[in-house]
Amino acid sequence: MDIATIIGIFSGIGLIFFGIALLTSDFNMFWSAPSLAIVLGGSLAATLIAFPLREVTRVFKVIGIVFRKEKDQMRNLIKDIVSVAGSARRGSMELEKVIGNIKHPFLKDGIQLIIDGYNDGDIRDILSTRIDNREARERSEANVLKTMGRFSPAFGMVGTLIGLVVMLYGMGSGGAADEDMAAKLGVGMGAAIVTTFYGSVLANLFFLPMATKIEMRIDKESLEQYMMLEGVLLLYDRKHPLIVRERLNSFLPPRLWIKEDEIG
Amino acid sequence: MDIATIIGIFSGIGLIFFGIALLTSDFNMFWSAPSLAIVLGGSLAATLIAFPLREVTRVFKVIGIVFRKEKDQMRNLIKDIVSVAGSARRGSMELEKVIGNIKHPFLKDGIQLIIDGYNDGDIRDILSTRIDNREARERSEANVLKTMGRFSPAFGMVGTLIGLVVMLYGMGSGGAADEDMAAKLGVGMGAAIVTTFYGSVLANLFFLPMATKIEMRIDKESLEQYMMLEGVLLLYDRKHPLIVRERLNSFLPPRLWIKEDEIG
Amino acid sequence: MDIATIIGIFSGIGLIFFGIALLTSDFNMFWSAPSLAIVLGGSLAATLIAFPLREVTRVFKVIGIVFRKEKDQMRNLIKDIVSVAGSARRGSMELEKVIGNIKHPFLKDGIQLIIDGYNDGDIRDILSTRIDNREARERSEANVLKTMGRFSPAFGMVGTLIGLVVMLYGMGSGGAADEDMAAKLGVGMGAAIVTTFYGSVLANLFFLPMATKIEMRIDKESLEQYMMLEGVLLLYDRKHPLIVRERLNSFLPPRLWIKEDEIG
Amino acid sequence: MDIATIIGIFSGIGLIFFGIALLTSDFNMFWSAPSLAIVLGGSLAATLIAFPLREVTRVFKVIGIVFRKEKDQMRNLIKDIVSVAGSARRGSMELEKVIGNIKHPFLKDGIQLIIDGYNDGDIRDILSTRIDNREARERSEANVLKTMGRFSPAFGMVGTLIGLVVMLYGMGSGGAADEDMAAKLGVGMGAAIVTTFYGSVLANLFFLPMATKIEMRIDKESLEQYMMLEGVLLLYDRKHPLIVRERLNSFLPPRLWIKEDEIG
Amino acid sequence: MDIATIIGIFSGIGLIFFGIALLTSDFNMFWSAPSLAIVLGGSLAATLIAFPLREVTRVFKVIGIVFRKEKDQMRNLIKDIVSVAGSARRGSMELEKVIGNIKHPFLKDGIQLIIDGYNDGDIRDILSTRIDNREARERSEANVLKTMGRFSPAFGMVGTLIGLVVMLYGMGSGGAADEDMAAKLGVGMGAAIVTTFYGSVLANLFFLPMATKIEMRIDKESLEQYMMLEGVLLLYDRKHPLIVRERLNSFLPPRLWIKEDEIG
Repeated sequence: MDIATIIGIFSGIGLIFFGIALLTSDFNMFWSAPSLAIVLGGSLAATLIAFPLREVTRVFKVIGIVFRKEKDQMRNLIKDIVSVAGSARRGSMELEKVIGNIKHPFLKDGIQLIIDGYNDGDIRDILSTRIDNREARERSEANVLKTMGRFSPAFGMVGTLIGLVVMLYGMGSGGAADEDMAAKLGVGMGAAIVTTFYGSVLANLFFLPMATKIEMRIDKESLEQYMMLEGVLLLYDRKHPLIVRERLNSFLPPRLWIKEDEIG
Repeated sequence: MDIATIIGIFSGIGLIFFGIALLTSDFNMFWSAPSLAIVLGGSLAATLIAFPLREVTRVFKVIGIVFRKEKDQMRNLIKDIVSVAGSARRGSMELEKVIGNIKHPFLKDGIQLIIDGYNDGDIRDILSTRIDNREARERSEANVLKTMGRFSPAFGMVGTLIGLVVMLYGMGSGGAADEDMAAKLGVGMGAAIVTTFYGSVLANLFFLPMATKIEMRIDKESLEQYMMLEGVLLLYDRKHPLIVRERLNSFLPPRLWIKEDEIG
Repeated sequence: MDIATIIGIFSGIGLIFFGIALLTSDFNMFWSAPSLAIVLGGSLAATLIAFPLREVTRVFKVIGIVFRKEKDQMRNLIKDIVSVAGSARRGSMELEKVIGNIKHPFLKDGIQLIIDGYNDGDIRDILSTRIDNREARERSEANVLKTMGRFSPAFGMVGTLIGLVVMLYGMGSGGAADEDMAAKLGVGMGAAIVTTFYGSVLANLFFLPMATKIEMRIDKESLEQYMMLEGVLLLYDRKHPLIVRERLNSFLPPRLWIKEDEIG
Repeated sequence: MDIATIIGIFSGIGLIFFGIALLTSDFNMFWSAPSLAIVLGGSLAATLIAFPLREVTRVFKVIGIVFRKEKDQMRNLIKDIVSVAGSARRGSMELEKVIGNIKHPFLKDGIQLIIDGYNDGDIRDILSTRIDNREARERSEANVLKTMGRFSPAFGMVGTLIGLVVMLYGMGSGGAADEDMAAKLGVGMGAAIVTTFYGSVLANLFFLPMATKIEMRIDKESLEQYMMLEGVLLLYDRKHPLIVRERLNSFLPPRLWIKEDEIG
Repeated sequence: MDIATIIGIFSGIGLIFFGIALLTSDFNMFWSAPSLAIVLGGSLAATLIAFPLREVTRVFKVIGIVFRKEKDQMRNLIKDIVSVAGSARRGSMELEKVIGNIKHPFLKDGIQLIIDGYNDGDIRDILSTRIDNREARERSEANVLKTMGRFSPAFGMVGTLIGLVVMLYGMGSGGAADEDMAAKLGVGMGAAIVTTFYGSVLANLFFLPMATKIEMRIDKESLEQYMMLEGVLLLYDRKHPLIVRERLNSFLPPRLWIKEDEIG
């Protein structure tokens, strides 16, 4: 579980409830099923028009990612690459013996390409096309969330406009007293504004921050994959393990650099 | 038919009607021909100024694209390329015999260039110029929709400003009683706001999501064409079908990779 | 004349008049010379500060471009280049004989460079620098319009703020009856809002769409010039007319491709 | 003096005064020292947090640039380069004799590098690093103005919010008659709105247009320097003056091209 | 201490207090713990969802950077590099003797790579990967602040919407007199607006300017590191100290260029 996401969502919702509770004990005025329907439904409808069905249905899977713990495996991957660098120097045959120790599928595929006898140009082309296309696919999934975050305030406003129009048309219809009209006007406008409130909370507490987290995950995975691509090419060039370590360390902040004694 | 678009449009419109129905039974207050004329007509007028006539008239064709089902032919195209890779190795003469099996016009043209004896630099230049210009033309058509999505809220506001000015000037003109004035004021302002409502719904439920879908289609087609360009160059280089398959598989997500037994 | 621009401007203005006419017969309330002065004058003043005087004075010339008919000469230019490709193969002397048939100054200059004995690197450098600088100059002129489109709503708001402040200060000054005050208040606020209306119409019906059209023209001219640059280099390389045609056709959509029998 | 800037500022301020004068003779309601303090001071405070002190203090120097006349020296610089191209062909010794005729420091430094015996790679590296860093430094100074233009409407709104809160809290405090309260309310709200007015005018009539003009000057200087870099490399290559002129002419619009008889 | 930041924050807060003090002596109306909780807490909650926990906790460290004095060490670094250029010409052995004089860790690491016998391609790869990754890490930390600056006005609006809804629902509930209702309405709306005020001040006086300053620091450090990378490669090429100085001077504005007699 990603603790930050959990804390963020619960504290965010908690704060809003707390803020309401300080002002009124009547939470009902903030509950409006039609408002929620217009904001959530409208955003979803617009998203369905904007994206292929397949990607919109994947939005729940994508939201799930936000709750999953981030794996920080850069250091372990570098260690894995350095640990097979010695075998790589002795040729493909030796490399084939140790490929079983590699867990990460992308890295394994890359090393397999060396064993299969592809040249370095082909390896770079195959792996970087794979990175680019993985990134494009994931980014287009993240865009579904981002789009919902862009449309939900718009539909919040649409709902508020509907409420305002109905309220304004009703303003003079009843022959009521002044005070009653003020009450009616207040309730009508309050109900109208609740939809804007929904749109704003959904966008700023859910859709937009989640989209940001997913984009950061995508960037991080791309960085890891570029490191692996770099590493595979160093193995292809049969570089000395020391050089491999030095080259790949540059992907880490200095305090996390892998020392010589950390390699098995 | 693209089911997502259909569901999106119907559910979006349905939700808005549902939201209105919960508040009032008088749908008339949300119907205003002049408001619609100002928003739709104004956006169209601005778009006519911004784009050549030919492209604006093509907007209906472009909207049609959004309703058409997306073809996901990447896998079939890769299979086609791999299936002729063997012939390509044996020279242009062999390649000419199997070109009839290729359906996609862009791929066919590319293979024809090999047969016609163009070198790889020329082939890359011709095909990538073709991709760039196709993309530029289509993107400029998608921009017509995007521009309408940007102008329609602006003209929604223009319509509301017109309504407000008329209402405000009329405020003190009649020597009516307080209550009547409130009613008049309410109706005037309600009518004014309807134009903003139109502008917002048109932009957020139609123009903007449609523009997004079209842009995604354009990107997808470009990706397919770049894959075909890559494939044609591999055929030119007379690469082994296994290598062709491996190189082109990197355009697919791992779970869709084409296995050896899938090639005829 | 560019028909789209004419239709756009007239229908846009017509729709706004029509919208007003439906609500009131008193068009005077939408006419305010000081409002127009603040919006147009303010935007112009800001633009004068932002750009050199020479470019601002050229804004009327630039607006003129929007009304001029777009020339779609890509096909004719390609035909011209292909028609001299045969001569180009036989050397500069032959090329000199046919240069008189070329009308487009940029293409003529490019072919002259071949005749003058420049090498291909020099030709590419000279022509692409010329394209880049032409584009930069024209884009900076289009920016004058775009900037006016960005400033005019801002000055619309400035005018409205002025009107609101005066109205608000005047609210309690007169010892008038309730009803009169409402009338005064309404007229004051209506007059204030007219300035916002002007700013919005000027930006969304004139400046911004015009700037878009000009930018599209600039892009189109650059595309034509890049095609000519490509063509001149093909002539320099003494390529066969068939290859020249194939290479330059990739700048056109397939349905417009130039067939062999179209070349004289 | 840059006449456009002067005209722009004076006509802009004049128009606003004129607009106010048409509505009221009491200019006092638009003068509010605290509003000005909040807008100008707040923007300056935010800018101080955002930028190093040294750059903020340079903002006045930067504003001074906007009033200085733009020098259009591209043609003269090209003439200077062409005029020494003959000497450059005869070697560094000849070039050293004419370097005294060159006034522009950047061009002089560039030619000095040839005389000092640097190779073309070094010359390109040194001069283009110099251009990049000059541009980065100047752009960061222009950003101070741009940032003030982005913060001043925000602080205008902050000031208005302060005024509104005070006014709203004061609404029911006095036991005054209805009419008096309306007057009080009007004046309070008017005073609050003045701050937004200040923020908008400062941003749209001063900070933003000035930042634009400075950015255009920076672009222009970079273009001149790139031309000089190009010219120095042509001198290094000992190109014929005719070719130098042709190559550098491509930085000018055709109607300004330098003819052969313009070179002394 | 960075004096600009200190002056900026104190003068900004001071001006706002001063602005309030001119209007009212009752500062209490601007103090609202729940408003602050919603704005600060909500922004923090959204940021927690958007970023990994580790980076959000580092936000205080990042804010600390803004208060630390900027070190302008470009000149000293250039002097350091030039001063070892003589030794570098005489080979790695000589370079090893003087490496102790180098303080900056990045520069020291770079020179160590020369001594360790890496070739120039490897050195460029290692150092530029290190620069890119350092920049990406720091930029992602700066983004935490930027995101808070983007979310805090949104949560300011959310808080205001909550306050407005409660106020509007309460409008007609009490059977109070007109005047009392106006008072209640005023206070309710005033309290609601305070949250928007908090959001705006937090964003425009703290989060956004701080994010800008941090980004400028990051750019500056990258420039220094690129200069060092350039310098290390010049040392690797065993260039003459004069050339090293000339090349690295181009990273400085002309008035700061290092003269020959400044090198020990």
